[in-house]
Amino acid sequence: MSKVINVTIWNEFRHEKTVDEVKALYPDGLHAYLKSVLECDEVKITLAALDDGPEHGLTDDVLNNTDVLMWWGHMAHHEVNDDIVEKVRERVYMGMGLIVMHSGHYSKVFQRVVGTTGNLLWGANVKEIIWNINPTHPIAEGIPSHFKLDAEEIYSEPFQIPQPEEQVFQGWYETGFVFRSGCCWTRGFGKIFYFQPGHETVPTFYNKYVQKILANAIRWAAPKETGYQKINYAPCVGDQFVSDDELDFFKK
Amino acid sequence: MSKVINVTIWNEFRHEKTVDEVKALYPDGLHAYLKSVLECDEVKITLAALDDGPEHGLTDDVLNNTDVLMWWGHMAHHEVNDDIVEKVRERVYMGMGLIVMHSGHYSKVFQRVVGTTGNLLWGANVKEIIWNINPTHPIAEGIPSHFKLDAEEIYSEPFQIPQPEEQVFQGWYETGFVFRSGCCWTRGFGKIFYFQPGHETVPTFYNKYVQKILANAIRWAAPKETGYQKINYAPCVGDQFVSDDELDFFKK
Amino acid sequence: MSKVINVTIWNEFRHEKTVDEVKALYPDGLHAYLKSVLECDEVKITLAALDDGPEHGLTDDVLNNTDVLMWWGHMAHHEVNDDIVEKVRERVYMGMGLIVMHSGHYSKVFQRVVGTTGNLLWGANVKEIIWNINPTHPIAEGIPSHFKLDAEEIYSEPFQIPQPEEQVFQGWYETGFVFRSGCCWTRGFGKIFYFQPGHETVPTFYNKYVQKILANAIRWAAPKETGYQKINYAPCVGDQFVSDDELDFFKK
Amino acid sequence: MSKVINVTIWNEFRHEKTVDEVKALYPDGLHAYLKSVLECDEVKITLAALDDGPEHGLTDDVLNNTDVLMWWGHMAHHEVNDDIVEKVRERVYMGMGLIVMHSGHYSKVFQRVVGTTGNLLWGANVKEIIWNINPTHPIAEGIPSHFKLDAEEIYSEPFQIPQPEEQVFQGWYETGFVFRSGCCWTRGFGKIFYFQPGHETVPTFYNKYVQKILANAIRWAAPKETGYQKINYAPCVGDQFVSDDELDFFKK
Repeated sequence: MSKVINVTIWNEFRHEKTVDEVKALYPDGLHAYLKSVLECDEVKITLAALDDGPEHGLTDDVLNNTDVLMWWGHMAHHEVNDDIVEKVRERVYMGMGLIVMHSGHYSKVFQRVVGTTGNLLWGANVKEIIWNINPTHPIAEGIPSHFKLDAEEIYSEPFQIPQPEEQVFQGWYETGFVFRSGCCWTRGFGKIFYFQPGHETVPTFYNKYVQKILANAIRWAAPKETGYQKINYAPCVGDQFVSDDELDFFKK
Repeated sequence: MSKVINVTIWNEFRHEKTVDEVKALYPDGLHAYLKSVLECDEVKITLAALDDGPEHGLTDDVLNNTDVLMWWGHMAHHEVNDDIVEKVRERVYMGMGLIVMHSGHYSKVFQRVVGTTGNLLWGANVKEIIWNINPTHPIAEGIPSHFKLDAEEIYSEPFQIPQPEEQVFQGWYETGFVFRSGCCWTRGFGKIFYFQPGHETVPTFYNKYVQKILANAIRWAAPKETGYQKINYAPCVGDQFVSDDELDFFKK
Repeated sequence: MSKVINVTIWNEFRHEKTVDEVKALYPDGLHAYLKSVLECDEVKITLAALDDGPEHGLTDDVLNNTDVLMWWGHMAHHEVNDDIVEKVRERVYMGMGLIVMHSGHYSKVFQRVVGTTGNLLWGANVKEIIWNINPTHPIAEGIPSHFKLDAEEIYSEPFQIPQPEEQVFQGWYETGFVFRSGCCWTRGFGKIFYFQPGHETVPTFYNKYVQKILANAIRWAAPKETGYQKINYAPCVGDQFVSDDELDFFKK
Repeated sequence: MSKVINVTIWNEFRHEKTVDEVKALYPDGLHAYLKSVLECDEVKITLAALDDGPEHGLTDDVLNNTDVLMWWGHMAHHEVNDDIVEKVRERVYMGMGLIVMHSGHYSKVFQRVVGTTGNLLWGANVKEIIWNINPTHPIAEGIPSHFKLDAEEIYSEPFQIPQPEEQVFQGWYETGFVFRSGCCWTRGFGKIFYFQPGHETVPTFYNKYVQKILANAIRWAAPKETGYQKINYAPCVGDQFVSDDELDFFKK
């Protein structure tokens, strides 16, 4: 538990350069702001962005040293290189945690890792209440029964996702909409958390509960040290009776 | 599929005798009203009530001929005989479907069959919107993306239930609350559907979508004819290699 | 229920041309053999193979008219065009059923649709017993408590898959191995069934229970007619209160 | 994490007094033996047995100070007082962990907490191989891909349980049977783990991997400190808009 968790926050990082209200909130990018509030002795954070070279900052060296990848993208999902998406997918299956934020519901990474379209309804920025429906879940630690965001972009059901293995949060919008705001899945050996709040034109990431949820999610999604994650093949066992000596695939 | 489904609707049937506004809506009991709208060639309905004798109308003869049991109770959960609760539980485990409506979330039957307290927040009658979040589920057949109830009793998260195997509906209340309004589980070989709308002082059961949902749920929860439901024991298989001839427990 | 289900059976169709023992079992390909035993008034079957042109027989016209896709591949997974894999994935998310057989566990289609590596142990052809662990599941209809295959290729745990939403079959091998032989998931609006038996050098597909399981799976995986499957976008709902008139996305 | 976990091991404790081979293995009871191998600074263990008075050693004082209850019963399930079963059930729903061992599959506690009959096939003591099918699960920490028990009682599918939320182990028996040997569920706020090995006439509990699995399960099932577990009622929220100040039910 005292092991350091290596987190990479990936951000499309375009709106912060071109839209004044976003720039005002996150002058160095929302990934940099998240780093400033989430980094600590236990969590070491690397930043990466769409325009950080042909691999979008997700070189093999970065990915191979990432325990948990956080993802924020919005208008340029299609610009993300398919080879990088495949590398992320494979690494999640090997155990890397993945936290997809807000408009990342439509990213190739979310679609391919979880297996869905991510379709939903969306709308204006209105008042949202986030309900904590799974209060003993690790991601809900320290979160009250509910909290309010004065403005968040409407994301509404029907949200086209596989039934979550665990749902932690539920969103209510003043204009009549609802959303499964915090959902967990596993894929391969990796844990995935989708969290809906985080629109770029409102100060959602400044909210202390949003920050606490993301901090909890990092610890929840971090892979355990079994060494199993490094097994990525299908060994042949022949026609002999199973042998303890030959077959412990979990030893490194 | 052309087989008749035998449904028993169990109702506490007290409010309809003592509260004028309930009596006005359901002069013969809400179970009788539901029978009038749900019965058809495919669905044959029996009625039972708390005050129908010491077994509350759920004699062995009735239970043994019930494919799907619908349950509405409210203030007198504690008056339901524990032996009857155990018989219902065992029969659900053997394959009988169970549809628990509204305040039945606090019935012994729901608590013991599903395994939970059923705790929740509750409040006044306010406007509710029911969202259909699982539109290809059999229980959602013919239901639009959402529909409104001008007044329903607030039932709010945190709702203390095991993660539903499938969630079909989500409720939004105008005073800021949310609820998992339609949830599915299996227990033993039985299917269970909990449906939140159905307060006794408002005309919820007159709503055509509510009726359609209950009609769909009856068909979804009805047991299939495998004969397996009749197996209720743990046979000994000795020390011999498994044999096809001796061990087909699914034959009647 | 009387609607015809359009099934496409996709086969790598290489071993049947090059390996004598496979050719002897399936002279026209195992897909053709499966068609001969599965086609009926209710099920209309189209065949497609890896070498049927650049789209491997899965043209838009074929895919758009497929309710359930069955997939058998083995040594040439890497030759399957990524664009076709993406089309299959998207169509499953829109509601097409997918039945992946045997060595298809390593196909791109299985990996990307379900979201996993499909890693497992494998070995020689030995005796297998298939246990029916979910006898009231629609895919288990008519299947006894267990049946034997005199020889099937060993596929053993650890099988790297997300926890199945439903497991129907469990395999036992005489050399000490076990496998989750029949598993169900949903992705988007599509249902997926993975079934382990089906090695090309043994007559597994001639087994009457294997045939019955595949016939059941076709009916289980076929999409229901809700029209919802045709929605593949994220509509904007603006800042107004939710309106019934404007927002029924489930109408065609 | 440095908090002490209070475990109570409940044992029927009859066979150890009457059957020589059991007495030889566990002269002070299998619960006492388990205490001797599981107790440590982090885990404090209390013992309780069927014949420890009318409450079977599970007084309110004991139960209210139990974080994780371990349960082993066999021939006298029917002698367990229903009131105690209900207290256990309620306390699990409030967050107490429950580890049910071996023949406890037929205990009232397992049946009522999880919601099932627990029916299965059973037979002689034969060689079993336990496969670790979920190697990154906390309960599988330090467990190899598989290990052997020279003799365990056959417990075979079909095992009548709700689909496990997570399955960790799979059993193989030399006479052709299989079993879901380690399964997880949640009920209310409590976590439940069922573990099949543990027959009284064979030295299963002396196996180091069995001991490690039980030690892991204690840590996995122990409730987290949210205070939420103490909420056991349904508060009224009236007709006002939801208020942060009035409604944080998670504060003690």
